[in-house]
Amino acid sequence: MSVIEKLRVEVCDLHRELIRWGLVAWTAGNVSARVPGEDLLVIKPSGVSYEDLSPEAMVVADFSGRLVDGHHAPSSDTEAHGYVYAHMPHIGGVVHTHSPYATAWAARGEPIPCSITAMADEFGGDIPVGPFALIGSDAIGRGIVETLAGHRSPAVLMRQHGPFTIGATAKAAVKAAVMCEDVARTMHLARQLGPVERLPSQAVDSLHDRYQNVYGQKGAR
Amino acid sequence: MSVIEKLRVEVCDLHRELIRWGLVAWTAGNVSARVPGEDLLVIKPSGVSYEDLSPEAMVVADFSGRLVDGHHAPSSDTEAHGYVYAHMPHIGGVVHTHSPYATAWAARGEPIPCSITAMADEFGGDIPVGPFALIGSDAIGRGIVETLAGHRSPAVLMRQHGPFTIGATAKAAVKAAVMCEDVARTMHLARQLGPVERLPSQAVDSLHDRYQNVYGQKGAR
Amino acid sequence: MSVIEKLRVEVCDLHRELIRWGLVAWTAGNVSARVPGEDLLVIKPSGVSYEDLSPEAMVVADFSGRLVDGHHAPSSDTEAHGYVYAHMPHIGGVVHTHSPYATAWAARGEPIPCSITAMADEFGGDIPVGPFALIGSDAIGRGIVETLAGHRSPAVLMRQHGPFTIGATAKAAVKAAVMCEDVARTMHLARQLGPVERLPSQAVDSLHDRYQNVYGQKGAR
Amino acid sequence: MSVIEKLRVEVCDLHRELIRWGLVAWTAGNVSARVPGEDLLVIKPSGVSYEDLSPEAMVVADFSGRLVDGHHAPSSDTEAHGYVYAHMPHIGGVVHTHSPYATAWAARGEPIPCSITAMADEFGGDIPVGPFALIGSDAIGRGIVETLAGHRSPAVLMRQHGPFTIGATAKAAVKAAVMCEDVARTMHLARQLGPVERLPSQAVDSLHDRYQNVYGQKGAR
Repeated sequence: MSVIEKLRVEVCDLHRELIRWGLVAWTAGNVSARVPGEDLLVIKPSGVSYEDLSPEAMVVADFSGRLVDGHHAPSSDTEAHGYVYAHMPHIGGVVHTHSPYATAWAARGEPIPCSITAMADEFGGDIPVGPFALIGSDAIGRGIVETLAGHRSPAVLMRQHGPFTIGATAKAAVKAAVMCEDVARTMHLARQLGPVERLPSQAVDSLHDRYQNVYGQKGAR
Repeated sequence: MSVIEKLRVEVCDLHRELIRWGLVAWTAGNVSARVPGEDLLVIKPSGVSYEDLSPEAMVVADFSGRLVDGHHAPSSDTEAHGYVYAHMPHIGGVVHTHSPYATAWAARGEPIPCSITAMADEFGGDIPVGPFALIGSDAIGRGIVETLAGHRSPAVLMRQHGPFTIGATAKAAVKAAVMCEDVARTMHLARQLGPVERLPSQAVDSLHDRYQNVYGQKGAR
Repeated sequence: MSVIEKLRVEVCDLHRELIRWGLVAWTAGNVSARVPGEDLLVIKPSGVSYEDLSPEAMVVADFSGRLVDGHHAPSSDTEAHGYVYAHMPHIGGVVHTHSPYATAWAARGEPIPCSITAMADEFGGDIPVGPFALIGSDAIGRGIVETLAGHRSPAVLMRQHGPFTIGATAKAAVKAAVMCEDVARTMHLARQLGPVERLPSQAVDSLHDRYQNVYGQKGAR
Repeated sequence: MSVIEKLRVEVCDLHRELIRWGLVAWTAGNVSARVPGEDLLVIKPSGVSYEDLSPEAMVVADFSGRLVDGHHAPSSDTEAHGYVYAHMPHIGGVVHTHSPYATAWAARGEPIPCSITAMADEFGGDIPVGPFALIGSDAIGRGIVETLAGHRSPAVLMRQHGPFTIGATAKAAVKAAVMCEDVARTMHLARQLGPVERLPSQAVDSLHDRYQNVYGQKGAR
């Protein structure tokens, strides 16, 4: 299997995780992976239902969102994914969903405060809010990159739109999307019945450092 | 297979989507499809459990809700579906559910404000509220048609009752029902922790236009 | 198969519906059926996990809750079920759960107001609250029977405990338990963002009458 | 099969219950069992996905969290589990999750008040809050043990972190984790729409005593 064939399988399989963890409705949401060493990405086709996804249905596009290989039109969010890959060279995967709790914080334009250890572990601080931006230019991609520049968080809540997450691999970006919805829900529930304090920044630093460097199996991080 | 046989299969299968996306409890909810070129529709039988649905169990009724072909009594909402087909000639599918978040907005008689891009995409504005109407006359059908007349939204929240959705096909109406519950939930969650602004109408127009005309695969829209 | 063998199968199968509709956690919850013409009932054994339920594991008990036939101790709620059968001769099935939304109303001791058509259909009015009663006497059974005496509702919320539902058959009681949680959730969500008016009593009467007498298939009601 | 081989199977299988009851996201959460008569425990490896768990992947560690047998690094919570076994000799199982409703109470540092019979049954009172403690010393284990010392509850909400539960067996600790999330949700929902009174302490004592000594099957308690 070529690198691109492997990525088609991987990206296709990862879309199932979006369904499994309740992050998407109908055809919403998409996962992409960078093709290593090339200005290309593999992504879900636009508006195809999750049941009809197959490795062959995945498409290869350039960083401007133009179709390079495949039988379908690429996701309408391809340009935003491409902008991230073009401007964040260490990033290998991008995910976008409208997962309900994260999108609720995005609708209010309110960052998720880092008040629980699970947030410190994965996000290393608040999950920040990016600007409202219309699809059809590089505005969304730019908003993601500029917002994440000052944060350890692999997730950004695009205002009145929904979360985008990034990772060294597509799987890591999917994990960030799952954890983003999980902590968005827990913090929503916590805040419903009273105020919640942020964790002290020293505790956040310590938890984040351990999680990124000690948690998990060596070589699998 | 005749056109009606095909529609029985399609309508039967689409009911599974209502279960899959959590829109219905027990035997509640129903999907119908217009029989093209005839004053007939195919719909779920009344009060039959989702596990016992088969293409043969679907029934054919006229637009007044009278049984034309089938072994069961038609859904008690058939008259409302028929009124929509009789008065909206471009509509090919109708769906009714009591999905919890959408019905909660309907219970308060409050339209869902168009504050997130997913709503602009699918609904092109607020999801409006229709009148309270009792079953057993054309009051529900009339309320649906009159409310949707002034809106781009394929969904209406019938007051203290629940959502009805429409589409060019039964599948499109089911999609609208799934998205209606999804945005009803997200906007419910958003509003629980603070106020949410509507999107500017220009942004709504732009998003709705792109989604209706560019999103998805050509020929599959 | 004898009548009791058939009831063991039916009662066992109906417990799966409690899981399927999210009404129970771990081993909580129970369904029973009256043995026609005898002062006996068939019920779930106490504290057995849902995966280990089989028709043979179901137990036969008398109306005082004493084991009559079976290899396990009967549910600790058997006495309450028995009291209902002894005092409501038209009832053939009883269900008890701690389903979350219904139990939340029960915890506050607040009846669920009849504000949506789905409630009028199935419950014919508010879902009432019964007294707080300890297990181990006939207090729970008496609380159920006395509370339901003045209501069309097949569901009662036992205060700080959870819902009990009744029906002409065990299946009808399970349906009432599923619908009780469904409307408890919808009304909870509705009330979270503002006040909700009750339906006019004439509309409730009309809806309830139609649902009980016209909805569904003849002979299957 | 040796005792340890049996525990590997048991601990592996119990992790599926965490998924089934919605207590964990991605690789979060862990179950352990004491190896009877030895200062050893069997636990999940760190950061391995639930789909890749097998009995062979489980690891044996000592009470300081050091790997004794197995091919993976032990869960990063192993030291906390070990501290519990070292200081609570009657405990045979420990579970840790970030289940959303329980973690929401933990985020506010608010005990769950014992206001419903299901809480009296399983927890015998409020579910208490333990201190905020960083991973990497015995602070978490100490916080669990010191908080649970004065309570009948098998669950403690570690502040701004999440629940830990204990039991005579690993299965009992998993049951406590499932019931902890269940009552955390019900009490959250109850409190959202108004105040809730605690049960009188005499009623709590009576319910707890019956549930611990009469509920279930003899020999299976």
